[in-house]
Amino acid sequence: MSHFKPAAPFETETGDPILLTPGPLTTSRSVKAAMLHDWGSRDANFVATNKAVLAQLCEIANGGEDFVTVPMQGSGTFAVEAMLTSLVPRKGKVLVLVNGAYGLRAKRILDIAARKTVVHQTAEDAPPDLKKIEAILKRTPSITHIFAVHCETTSGILNPVEEIGALAAKYGKGYLIDSMSAFGALPLDARAVHADAVAASSNKCIEGVPGLGFVICRRDVLAASQGNATTLVLDLHDQWSNFGKTGQYRFTPPTHVIVALHQALREFAAEGGVSGRGGRYRENCRILLDGMTALGFRPLLPEALQAPIIVTFHMLDDPRFDFQRFYDGLKERGFVIYPGKLTVADSFRMGCIGRIGEREMRGALDAVREMLEVMGVEAVPAQA
Amino acid sequence: MSHFKPAAPFETETGDPILLTPGPLTTSRSVKAAMLHDWGSRDANFVATNKAVLAQLCEIANGGEDFVTVPMQGSGTFAVEAMLTSLVPRKGKVLVLVNGAYGLRAKRILDIAARKTVVHQTAEDAPPDLKKIEAILKRTPSITHIFAVHCETTSGILNPVEEIGALAAKYGKGYLIDSMSAFGALPLDARAVHADAVAASSNKCIEGVPGLGFVICRRDVLAASQGNATTLVLDLHDQWSNFGKTGQYRFTPPTHVIVALHQALREFAAEGGVSGRGGRYRENCRILLDGMTALGFRPLLPEALQAPIIVTFHMLDDPRFDFQRFYDGLKERGFVIYPGKLTVADSFRMGCIGRIGEREMRGALDAVREMLEVMGVEAVPAQA
Ligand SMILES: Cc1ncc(COP(=O)(O)O)c(C=O)c1O
Ligand SMILES: Cc1ncc(COP(=O)(O)O)c(C=O)c1O
Repeated sequence: MSHFKPAAPFETETGDPILLTPGPLTTSRSVKAAMLHDWGSRDANFVATNKAVLAQLCEIANGGEDFVTVPMQGSGTFAVEAMLTSLVPRKGKVLVLVNGAYGLRAKRILDIAARKTVVHQTAEDAPPDLKKIEAILKRTPSITHIFAVHCETTSGILNPVEEIGALAAKYGKGYLIDSMSAFGALPLDARAVHADAVAASSNKCIEGVPGLGFVICRRDVLAASQGNATTLVLDLHDQWSNFGKTGQYRFTPPTHVIVALHQALREFAAEGGVSGRGGRYRENCRILLDGMTALGFRPLLPEALQAPIIVTFHMLDDPRFDFQRFYDGLKERGFVIYPGKLTVADSFRMGCIGRIGEREMRGALDAVREMLEVMGVEAVPAQA
Repeated sequence: MSHFKPAAPFETETGDPILLTPGPLTTSRSVKAAMLHDWGSRDANFVATNKAVLAQLCEIANGGEDFVTVPMQGSGTFAVEAMLTSLVPRKGKVLVLVNGAYGLRAKRILDIAARKTVVHQTAEDAPPDLKKIEAILKRTPSITHIFAVHCETTSGILNPVEEIGALAAKYGKGYLIDSMSAFGALPLDARAVHADAVAASSNKCIEGVPGLGFVICRRDVLAASQGNATTLVLDLHDQWSNFGKTGQYRFTPPTHVIVALHQALREFAAEGGVSGRGGRYRENCRILLDGMTALGFRPLLPEALQAPIIVTFHMLDDPRFDFQRFYDGLKERGFVIYPGKLTVADSFRMGCIGRIGEREMRGALDAVREMLEVMGVEAVPAQA
């Protein structure tokens, strides 16, 4: 079996495989090196670093003075649950737009927290239907909020957050966005889309390490949310008001993760912010799509719906194509890909995000080509 | 003012000040260096590392096959809230033993989660009264659980977790322990103390970096807890059952924090586990107490109640002693201390935990002596 082994895996700065996943991602050496120190979490130096991080995150969403970033230790889901349970009052009712696992997860969070929901569900490869949303809003005036996922990472689809926001504004509904996998790479103007809050995390397009979620909240909405939460740790209002009083976290923050995020934000700004970062990811995505299509793989989504974050490919319809072998062979060659999460089709995913560019995308395509050869699968370019 | 500045701060491996705090702590260079890589959170290598971490944590509590570690992203408080709200049923009633801020915090968590409580509160320098606990258990059969804090970090007091456990067993109550600041340094045999669960975190006596809490749970108690939780993210049963199914976290784990914890556990074992680690901390604590007393500082607690984790000192009763100047001067000299949290007395705290030993403790005492000189405070040895 020795001829299945690559001569040498793809060369990287750290010797680690490249993560073609939706996060944790491949981060820069300098982001990781920021973690080679220890900080007192209540000491002035750390407090100042954290404050700068929160302010920069708010700027990325063009939040201005109207918005404020409330961090949430844990992960992205902790931020989403904190947003939903802190900002939706106990008697609220949320229209949840579902076209994948993260929309469903929000619905589950709301069910557990005993918040009422109305669900508008579309297929995993279909955006929500704006006409139907408007009809639901018209006939269900008791709806208080709309929840949407920006890039539904299940498929990689880009949802129309601006148009949904226009409907939220027209009907006077609160608007909560899970922008986890898009934040920092796709433009999102919190004020222009009429958002009440936008949730995201440290370890996706900002290219930090995992351990911190955050919610960029409209100040007046946050101020009015006292008493909504049914937990201590996930209470955004309490977390926020403590920052107002002391500048400090209520509970020990992941200091190393936050200092790495500070460095990641520096590198984000140096790359030209959302347009620079998004531009690199779009180029990564184009190289990936072109190359994989030439090798016979069919993407799930048409180009118009594909966000440049993560691409879902159908499994090859060839008995010699064995996904586990493909996965393991790519890993041996220095690339970690991601299993599919679709319910409708047998698929896998490859990410375009993280500290990777043309060299890494072409290296991944070389490894895919090699693995097809190893498995004896002929590369037949997919039909458009 | 230039004569206030030290010639050079205390020399450390990383150039960072020594953290004489209850966590985040000074960690070893090798623990931090473990974070210089990136891992896919669903990839086999990370899954195996995480599994080893969870197993080792359980061993430290001598959990054997009866217990299992359920990690909780976030911080220690996330683990405590997860433990209380996942293991106490909605109709449960908890006897909360309070002699500091962390007992009060547990009470607040239970109030918010609408679990009934009975509080036995003692002064911050007094352990709970075992006779009174027994009387409460006798007259309130509706109590289902007892909650205790192992080392109440507010003062540094060691609470009698074994004796409390004996009462829990005698009266057939569940027993939940917050061992945050003691775990790994003070012996705690989960089976011998009749615990249902023990909560702690990555960044205290195990000497990892912050970002992960964990709850070491009795398997049968955990198995019976399905449906108790009122959140998605803090549901220990759901977190546990997902590990059973996939070996993976439900939501992105702080991969770097966990790999650093893996390295920290290696160094913990190399030091001789609880007895080696606890031995070093006891020595640190003795040097600190002797030195500070010689300089005129009075500890809050008598020796018999003092855990070798963190020491509370009264402020000096001298008009020339200015705490902010003292704090800043110590920091300039390379030592970060901790403000007091007592409600009963004006105080500050100095920790004995983290990757520090005799050299660091003596360096801290030198810095304290210098600052007393700078402030013109005469060192008058405190009376015993
Ligand atoms: C759109 C979206 N929402 C929520 C999450 C959950 O984030 P986490 O895994 O950090 O909890 C993800 C993770 O990939 C995501 O892509
Ligand atoms: C006894 C005790 N419980 C709970 C906590 C809370 O832990 P965290 O700050 O990690 O949330 C601490 C923190 O010092 C503690 O000492």
